[in-house]
Amino acid sequence: MWSCDRIRIPVCGHNRVVIILFTDFGLAGPYTGQMQAILHQQAPGIPVVSLFADLPAFDIEAAAYLLPAHGKGFPPGSVFLCVVDPGVGGARPGVVVQADGRWYVGPNEGLFALVARRAHQASCWQLPQPDGASASFHGRDVFAPVAARLARGGSVPGEAVDPACLDRPGWPDELWRVAYIDHYGNAMTGLRAGAVDPGAQLLIGEQVLPRARTFSDMPAGAAFWYENANALVEIAVNRGRADSLPGIRVGTPVTLQVRS
Amino acid sequence: MWSCDRIRIPVCGHNRVVIILFTDFGLAGPYTGQMQAILHQQAPGIPVVSLFADLPAFDIEAAAYLLPAHGKGFPPGSVFLCVVDPGVGGARPGVVVQADGRWYVGPNEGLFALVARRAHQASCWQLPQPDGASASFHGRDVFAPVAARLARGGSVPGEAVDPACLDRPGWPDELWRVAYIDHYGNAMTGLRAGAVDPGAQLLIGEQVLPRARTFSDMPAGAAFWYENANALVEIAVNRGRADSLPGIRVGTPVTLQVRS
Amino acid sequence: MWSCDRIRIPVCGHNRVVIILFTDFGLAGPYTGQMQAILHQQAPGIPVVSLFADLPAFDIEAAAYLLPAHGKGFPPGSVFLCVVDPGVGGARPGVVVQADGRWYVGPNEGLFALVARRAHQASCWQLPQPDGASASFHGRDVFAPVAARLARGGSVPGEAVDPACLDRPGWPDELWRVAYIDHYGNAMTGLRAGAVDPGAQLLIGEQVLPRARTFSDMPAGAAFWYENANALVEIAVNRGRADSLPGIRVGTPVTLQVRS
Repeated sequence: MWSCDRIRIPVCGHNRVVIILFTDFGLAGPYTGQMQAILHQQAPGIPVVSLFADLPAFDIEAAAYLLPAHGKGFPPGSVFLCVVDPGVGGARPGVVVQADGRWYVGPNEGLFALVARRAHQASCWQLPQPDGASASFHGRDVFAPVAARLARGGSVPGEAVDPACLDRPGWPDELWRVAYIDHYGNAMTGLRAGAVDPGAQLLIGEQVLPRARTFSDMPAGAAFWYENANALVEIAVNRGRADSLPGIRVGTPVTLQVRS
Repeated sequence: MWSCDRIRIPVCGHNRVVIILFTDFGLAGPYTGQMQAILHQQAPGIPVVSLFADLPAFDIEAAAYLLPAHGKGFPPGSVFLCVVDPGVGGARPGVVVQADGRWYVGPNEGLFALVARRAHQASCWQLPQPDGASASFHGRDVFAPVAARLARGGSVPGEAVDPACLDRPGWPDELWRVAYIDHYGNAMTGLRAGAVDPGAQLLIGEQVLPRARTFSDMPAGAAFWYENANALVEIAVNRGRADSLPGIRVGTPVTLQVRS
Repeated sequence: MWSCDRIRIPVCGHNRVVIILFTDFGLAGPYTGQMQAILHQQAPGIPVVSLFADLPAFDIEAAAYLLPAHGKGFPPGSVFLCVVDPGVGGARPGVVVQADGRWYVGPNEGLFALVARRAHQASCWQLPQPDGASASFHGRDVFAPVAARLARGGSVPGEAVDPACLDRPGWPDELWRVAYIDHYGNAMTGLRAGAVDPGAQLLIGEQVLPRARTFSDMPAGAAFWYENANALVEIAVNRGRADSLPGIRVGTPVTLQVRS
């Protein structure tokens, strides 16, 4: 995973499998807990980490761009259980994806489009329509048992299909909008910082924002953009909240400021 | 636990014990973490899952009807640590309940009434009044150590008493009101779907609601009731929020619409 | 850890190490999960508990007084990963602290001042400035790997320094203000109850508050102060919310009411 060269922490010889939850289920309520219970029962001893429980509700596109940015630190064998599923109970198929050695399980409504598009190697399996599952909670009844099975090293259920079915050809390579607002009010975009000239200024709402390396390089109260710890462009205000700037919310477009 | 017949996931031979937290402590703050720390210390290697940390505060009745609905998927040996406890520090006794092979630990103020009433077999033990515990956090100081002990297979502390002490005779078999509003704005009731004719319409506030199988069977924006993944009646709006309908909040009564 | 004498729960012979998270990262978003993933990878089999994820944002002083109050129940060998870090990316050093046998890891901006000041024995090591870390997420990239290493029993990285560098000499021994508001609206102060005469009345805003042993000793709706389960002075209202009293929020001063 991430490493810090100078401190030179020895990483354990065996990379332990971790199951990672990536959902819009919300922090509240029983849904994450019910999935965790299945995972602990069916994959004993394997840690379960909730990475996002509060992805923007039903916003598959935002989730699809956040997933590769947050997944790339995880070692091969990691299992991502991903559910943003407005179509639950309908005909949309469930899939298993293997991309660069990591596993992804969830509904195929676009959620894995960018993971698959950016992978060096990707495979895909389509899960059968479940008979015994509830109509409204496939995360618990379908996808969690599959994730547990993969984490245990079991065989992939379902039928191999062309991973091209994962892509959404109309979706761009970068998502030029706010994809998530965090606890501090920082506005995370779906735009990789590597795709933007470091000297560029960004325009969001009526704000023109310079780039900074990090918070402490800016005066208190100043708005800026920076490359966040997951290599995405993020809008922030040092010791303030970017989401209190006018018009900044999930969905707000970000563009390059063209110099006149 | 839940299974999905067609995918035929092999469940592990040994059902692992899981400790399940079921509280109104809130997601924020140290309380759930302090209980988890005790459990990890005193029951090493046993997973702890927070099922609900945000039950409606002090609403024992709502919790009492949500508990059996959310507990029935768990295998025998599971230990539920349940705390909705407005009377903490007073004279109300703590209890251990064994119902259909599952364990429940918490204050006896009605929380286990429906679990006990609906069980094929129920036993109850009353815990002694604790001497060394804080006056305000029996979840950590009294109930968590007992839950850890039960999860480890230890003997039941306390004195066997008649499980009739758990019931609240005045409480109905179904709770005809909203018991919980989830992250999506869905309004979960304490009413089992099996107790309602599938063709029935429900009346909540001034809304008359038809039944649907699931979200994707309804047009966007339409309100309906359905049997949720825990077999309870739930009020929902496809791609919308039921809690933005007038008057829908925890406590709002639900009734059968009588055809005129 | 905490024990309850009369129930006499046998504590396991081996005190298991637990890693405890103590941050202002918020419950939402990926930050706690990303740290947990590192910890599970690099310290396999060691439980990770989130004690606080919602400390008042950037309020190092409040966190510094809450830390010893919430840490004292944990056994020697416990590892606290503590991040309230408005200066992330700047020149402030990271430290490892050993105080009365417990480990603490995080940025040295005052967070460990009270832990060190109150300890019978304290040692301190300064971490090198990291080269490979992100500029904005040292919790994940610097401090979590160190916490994992300490939990595994590894040697302390960094250079031993005088623990006097941890203190903030201008800070008082007790924090006479609200340091945290919990889910129920209770206002936790940074003031140890043992420092206040049990017969004292406290003044907060325009309220004069008597002491009570616990909630159920007061009539519904009555405001009072009490010694909470972590030995801090807390302002509460029986079956009500202290944070709906006028002017009570994080930062509100509390004083002794002087009898006239």
